[in-house]
Amino acid sequence: MTSDPAAAERRVTIVLFPGFELLDVFGPVQLFSMAPGMTVDFAAPVAGPVASSHGVEVVAPVALAEVTDPDILLVPGGRGTRTLVSDPEFLESLRILAARARIVTSVCTGAALLAEAGLLDGYRATSNKMSFAWVVGHGARTTWVPEARWVEDRDRWTSSGVAAGMDMAAALLAATVGPEAARTATVRAELEVQADPSHDPFARIHGLV
Amino acid sequence: MTSDPAAAERRVTIVLFPGFELLDVFGPVQLFSMAPGMTVDFAAPVAGPVASSHGVEVVAPVALAEVTDPDILLVPGGRGTRTLVSDPEFLESLRILAARARIVTSVCTGAALLAEAGLLDGYRATSNKMSFAWVVGHGARTTWVPEARWVEDRDRWTSSGVAAGMDMAAALLAATVGPEAARTATVRAELEVQADPSHDPFARIHGLV
Repeated sequence: MTSDPAAAERRVTIVLFPGFELLDVFGPVQLFSMAPGMTVDFAAPVAGPVASSHGVEVVAPVALAEVTDPDILLVPGGRGTRTLVSDPEFLESLRILAARARIVTSVCTGAALLAEAGLLDGYRATSNKMSFAWVVGHGARTTWVPEARWVEDRDRWTSSGVAAGMDMAAALLAATVGPEAARTATVRAELEVQADPSHDPFARIHGLV
Repeated sequence: MTSDPAAAERRVTIVLFPGFELLDVFGPVQLFSMAPGMTVDFAAPVAGPVASSHGVEVVAPVALAEVTDPDILLVPGGRGTRTLVSDPEFLESLRILAARARIVTSVCTGAALLAEAGLLDGYRATSNKMSFAWVVGHGARTTWVPEARWVEDRDRWTSSGVAAGMDMAAALLAATVGPEAARTATVRAELEVQADPSHDPFARIHGLV
């Protein structure tokens, strides 16, 4: 550790759960892991292998209850959100971790989990465009933005579906570590990033605007 | 199974190895798993958890030796390629699987593994732009294309670094399953795909053109 806060490592904790969407997780993780100044941990309701929506298993080294204060908490989407919105124990674990994090962020239908946990109350937010109506039904106290690649509102960042998580991650890197770190990551990953959060052709494709 | 060959499932086998790059794998896998008509399997030199370049472990259910004929064999890049180019047993397992596959494809520095195995002899190919000189050193009988998002040459498809694998995967879906399957996958993933294989701003950033 260094005593210079500007050079301190930012720690991202990724929440895995059965039925998480692969790219929701590994798009942002790829950029975070290629940026200087960012470390990434994985945690799940129960430590051990966690099956994605697709079926392939990823190992969560620790349980959510073992996570110490993260700088950034990232909640992905995926099929698993459909049951977890009705899981009080899981939602309580999100609330506990979110209270300790500087920034809480979701990709895709992960926003439904944050909303159901009350973590988007009074915030502007967005989510996956194909499942938008379902997500909105879980957040009556949220101002939902149908046309957005991602939405940043104070300490809550929410992205649209799947691939949108990478564009949000690049913006989040720039805002937390710095623009140079974001550029280093996107050039290393050979990713042409979408830097305009209001750019969203998928809102129109799915009839939301 | 159906008796209509046009409706047959295409099977992609992803080769995992210690030090594979996450997005090289999960970018294409996300698109393949969202497309109708495509299934994805994972295999590694030894079945079980495989640590990525980043450290997070992904479970390979079977060993490479257990894989039956894949339609498409996908080899990712990552730090692990630096040692695997000198691993005769691994390279031989690639040759055996490639001989049975209809299409052999690589993302990023995975091209160095294909080249060292002799699987790009007489082909045009590309690779990661930051590590291009190193990759080219492993393929004296390959025509390397420095400025390309991806290169398709008969039954060999090779992409540039990391995120480029998703653009190639969308094109590969269109070519093998059909354009509608590719569009379904990219819309579901909310991915604005780069459809021009010659578009490559990263070649210039890395001084290759």
